Amino acid sequence: MRGDREESLPLAPGAEFDLIRRFYLGGRAEPRPDVLVGAGDDCAVVAGDGIALSSDMSVEGVHFRRDWLSLREIGYRAAAGALSDLAAVAARPIGVLVSLALPSEDAGEGAVELMCGIREVTEQVGGVVLGGDTTRTTGPLVVDVTVVGEAGWPVLRSGARRGDEVWVTGELGGAAAAVRALLRGESPTPAARERFARPVPRVREALWLAERGIPRAMVDLSDGLAGDALHVSTASRVAVLLARELVPVHPAALAAAGEDEDEALRLALGGGEDYELCFTAEMGRVPAHRAEFERETGTRLTCVGRIGGGSGVWWSDPEGRRRPLGFRAYQHFTEDT
Amino acid sequence: MRGDREESLPLAPGAEFDLIRRFYLGGRAEPRPDVLVGAGDDCAVVAGDGIALSSDMSVEGVHFRRDWLSLREIGYRAAAGALSDLAAVAARPIGVLVSLALPSEDAGEGAVELMCGIREVTEQVGGVVLGGDTTRTTGPLVVDVTVVGEAGWPVLRSGARRGDEVWVTGELGGAAAAVRALLRGESPTPAARERFARPVPRVREALWLAERGIPRAMVDLSDGLAGDALHVSTASRVAVLLARELVPVHPAALAAAGEDEDEALRLALGGGEDYELCFTAEMGRVPAHRAEFERETGTRLTCVGRIGGGSGVWWSDPEGRRRPLGFRAYQHFTEDT
Repeated sequence: MRGDREESLPLAPGAEFDLIRRFYLGGRAEPRPDVLVGAGDDCAVVAGDGIALSSDMSVEGVHFRRDWLSLREIGYRAAAGALSDLAAVAARPIGVLVSLALPSEDAGEGAVELMCGIREVTEQVGGVVLGGDTTRTTGPLVVDVTVVGEAGWPVLRSGARRGDEVWVTGELGGAAAAVRALLRGESPTPAARERFARPVPRVREALWLAERGIPRAMVDLSDGLAGDALHVSTASRVAVLLARELVPVHPAALAAAGEDEDEALRLALGGGEDYELCFTAEMGRVPAHRAEFERETGTRLTCVGRIGGGSGVWWSDPEGRRRPLGFRAYQHFTEDT
Repeated sequence: MRGDREESLPLAPGAEFDLIRRFYLGGRAEPRPDVLVGAGDDCAVVAGDGIALSSDMSVEGVHFRRDWLSLREIGYRAAAGALSDLAAVAARPIGVLVSLALPSEDAGEGAVELMCGIREVTEQVGGVVLGGDTTRTTGPLVVDVTVVGEAGWPVLRSGARRGDEVWVTGELGGAAAAVRALLRGESPTPAARERFARPVPRVREALWLAERGIPRAMVDLSDGLAGDALHVSTASRVAVLLARELVPVHPAALAAAGEDEDEALRLALGGGEDYELCFTAEMGRVPAHRAEFERETGTRLTCVGRIGGGSGVWWSDPEGRRRPLGFRAYQHFTEDT
């Protein structure tokens, strides 16, 4: 399945196969040593030191709305969210498998638009479409993306130690500001909309840091810092202590919140879908690298707190007193979020 | 994520995570060298010579009906169909990632029943649950299973050569006989229902054959021999020539078809979901191994034809004349199947 695939993809004729063929053949895939068998056989086969895998399912009406995003953006976001999980363990993307449950109105051009968005972000981070499945559905559109990467030295959630500093990439709350505007029937600012519709998985940033052995524990911010830091706390059996004044709130969230500082922090910590990274590093390890990191990646790096004993995620004031965050992360199956 | 996982699965509290916890913790997973990181972090990480990957999505009302199968059987079948793709390339299963879009009535015990069926067949073939995603949906239940296996020497669809023999495992048409009965509002025979509700992925059979270097091209029979042999034909740029009298029709299909030989063959070739294997082998290569194969695996092995020049799948009579099959494989997005 390498090289000149447009000519040679060996699938039998038929309407479903025509659709699949269009998905995988819209562009040229160069042969690459980590893809031994590409799309088109019963399985793809990849190679690498340790293969990182994660799945992320998006459902119309739950994770996205058609009146908020184009199908191409829906595909882009679904894949970006899944690829962000590769960044979270510092894995180099190899590719994605994409399963689509398509309402009949999307079975033609709509599916191709979706796949264009998925391919765009996948190729942006160095991956290819490895395969997947398509089916029709009588219900909402469902996009399930399984990401595949190489992680010789995965950075897990469990590596945080007391005394570590807690760092985040980028700025938080931009996507939440867009969602807030959309829910109110308003137009988000272009900057907020871009953060929501086209989040960039922080793959380059994660690899940069991991190559230098900097992160001890890492997680991506899909549910918001409040919720995702709790994963680090639970996995590492430590407390995450955040400093209110250090949180890098995205300008769009500041603008949306106006004078209300609590609301700005709620967007930044509780909003989710920023797909930035949060990692812990030995005290004093990051500052020597920070300027170079920001210059090479174009992404800001901010210390937002430190790791302490105990459990949970807390505000910590300069005197070291812990206070409740007052935010909850987004969760499915709960009624009041 | 190894060893005593019930105690230590480091997920944050919350309703969704409680559900995930129940999925992955119902039984004990032994540490294994091919699973470096199991369920619970941003990604699972697996290791192997070549990692085979495939996704298979099942949608309520399209691939299964609740009045035909229990949720446990629905889970079993969804995973069996996906695992069969590993068998088709002679990959040793490592595990599965499972994404579920759950209607609210399935979000509790129903989801656990589904996962029990998925785990049952996954563990049957030597795999574990590596991760996945759960979400709610306003539409039908959707189960997407991504299978992960090790395939140092994958057997592809493209390896068939003129003069090869074409072989199938087991007997064909049993699942189709059950579907025929169910569609008519009748009860399938127990044998037919078993073939439909609990198909066995032919992993052991595939590995047995591949270890001896026997299959040159292989495919699993998910859409029926007529359709799946066409994949081998297309990928290998050859014709598949089948002998009517050699096709091993399942007794349940024979019983369902009564005196109608064409109907029996239609069930066996066009029905799909048998999840047997079809492979090609150099002429004369299989017979010396056949008795041992059948004794060790308990699965029948039948030569159903040979590979010729040209393209397509044909009936071939003893004089070598080619005739159209007269069957079509099941496909989504077509209106008349």
